[in-house]
Amino acid sequence: MSAFAPFRRIAIIGFGLIGSSVARSCRKLGLAQELVCIDRDPAVRARVAELGLCDSIFSDAAKGVAGCDQVILCVPVMANAALAATIGPHLEPGTIVSDVGSVKGCVVRDVGPHLPPGVAFVPAHPVAGTEHSGPDAGFAELFQNRWCILTPPTETDPTAIQRIRAFWEAMGANVEVMTPDHHDRVLAITSHLPHLIAYNIVGTADDMEKVTQSEVIKFSAGGFRDFTRIAASDPTMWRDVFLTNKDAVLEMLGRFSEDLLALQRMIRWGDRDGLHALFTRARTIRRGIIAQGQESPAPDFGRTNAPTPPAKATDAQ
Amino acid sequence: MSAFAPFRRIAIIGFGLIGSSVARSCRKLGLAQELVCIDRDPAVRARVAELGLCDSIFSDAAKGVAGCDQVILCVPVMANAALAATIGPHLEPGTIVSDVGSVKGCVVRDVGPHLPPGVAFVPAHPVAGTEHSGPDAGFAELFQNRWCILTPPTETDPTAIQRIRAFWEAMGANVEVMTPDHHDRVLAITSHLPHLIAYNIVGTADDMEKVTQSEVIKFSAGGFRDFTRIAASDPTMWRDVFLTNKDAVLEMLGRFSEDLLALQRMIRWGDRDGLHALFTRARTIRRGIIAQGQESPAPDFGRTNAPTPPAKATDAQ
Repeated sequence: MSAFAPFRRIAIIGFGLIGSSVARSCRKLGLAQELVCIDRDPAVRARVAELGLCDSIFSDAAKGVAGCDQVILCVPVMANAALAATIGPHLEPGTIVSDVGSVKGCVVRDVGPHLPPGVAFVPAHPVAGTEHSGPDAGFAELFQNRWCILTPPTETDPTAIQRIRAFWEAMGANVEVMTPDHHDRVLAITSHLPHLIAYNIVGTADDMEKVTQSEVIKFSAGGFRDFTRIAASDPTMWRDVFLTNKDAVLEMLGRFSEDLLALQRMIRWGDRDGLHALFTRARTIRRGIIAQGQESPAPDFGRTNAPTPPAKATDAQ
Repeated sequence: MSAFAPFRRIAIIGFGLIGSSVARSCRKLGLAQELVCIDRDPAVRARVAELGLCDSIFSDAAKGVAGCDQVILCVPVMANAALAATIGPHLEPGTIVSDVGSVKGCVVRDVGPHLPPGVAFVPAHPVAGTEHSGPDAGFAELFQNRWCILTPPTETDPTAIQRIRAFWEAMGANVEVMTPDHHDRVLAITSHLPHLIAYNIVGTADDMEKVTQSEVIKFSAGGFRDFTRIAASDPTMWRDVFLTNKDAVLEMLGRFSEDLLALQRMIRWGDRDGLHALFTRARTIRRGIIAQGQESPAPDFGRTNAPTPPAKATDAQ
């Protein structure tokens, strides 16, 4: 970060994991002179007040955005259209509107038309997160060494794009710009399909009548537990992702199922060499992820085998 | 561990992750007066010698098992039959033969008939592991707070079962006894299917022609990287697992695919409530796994977002 000029007043709408992490990061790094919290849930607003994350707190988004030079939408993606309609008339010329949604085509479609002339729109997607939700789950370092993808419409003012790029870089992210359509295809395979598969296998395991749930839990260290982490992510957020990125998700799912049938056939027919070749490929990909600093090389991600204490209340779901 | 009587001489055949962890654990805890390494790979034997993991090292299993009171087979499961035929005639009465394989029905079938009278057979499966392989990957604490499942044939001497139970408990494991058939069904869902799915999705991602491999790697923090960990496991070991537990794996795969089609249909038809309900279930399962100490409650398994150093040579594949 070289000479980042702080925003005057940033409104963050929605204080889940991402919204509250952005707030903490802005606070810690001085990226805004004033931070505004907007959330429609009274319990969340109370918690944000207790944690001292913002300078002012609003339930009414139309009031909260007044006088802001950046407004960041951090709500489940299907909530964006109504929210944009609400705040649109109250945005001042020169404001930059951004978001953090995991699907970008629908955000451009749903939000853009509600923004008045003179307001710049720079959709963003920080590719970062944990399985925890709510205002307590956020932390200032969440975006460090993670990618943040910007998908600005072609007509967006380049100065606004540059400001949002600098904003995310200040929070430690690496920024890349691409079209909404390409973003949605890339994330369909690297994020949406994995979550879908994880949710599905947890459901399949939970349904097994001859293997009890207690056995599924007991022997989960054999591999299953890795899937449960991302399947513990926020249900509303993920429902919206699958419904708004339907086409790309269904396409990836089709490819996955086709490949799975081929793999099933190799097992049924005992194709030793085919299986070995497929299983060997996977190591290369993982090494690439570790080499690029997107993963820990420690065995088991650095988990210890020591008994762990029960989950704490910070897992606020 | 209360008054565990060490074995006199234990032979460990196969020095991968599990074999070398057993050796380290025996050394550290004094579970054997003498430890014998048997491995057919000269590079592995040389490394075991350098690391000082054993008292003596053999390439010839028939010679190595002489005078042992416990012999542990730590090879890919399809290698057991030939190995048992080789060592069978050289086992002394009173010896206990055990193994660590991930499939138990085939071990009972393949190994049992080769063992002479007076030799007890106590198949074991420690449900523990990491994505790393080879003699350098092992560590003495691998089995702490993990389950080890014993599947002794009904005719096995109860004293031998008790000794193997005490042996694994001494290494920190919790021991459970079940039939080979039940074991193979439970592990098919908690371990074999997750690995199969992980291998499959990594293959699907790698095949995408419109999304490049570099993008799959870059944006893997969105969920994909969780799958690559178990898909980086040893290819030979896993090929053998799927081929020897074919029936149970194909059954679980059938259930999984059926559920996935139902989920696909929910997305296509926009079933908001159905998706939300399915996604909400998964959190309960994960909480159970954390509460039982089989998982870390830390966000992201305790991964940090700091840049990680490149993978080290200890990932000996």
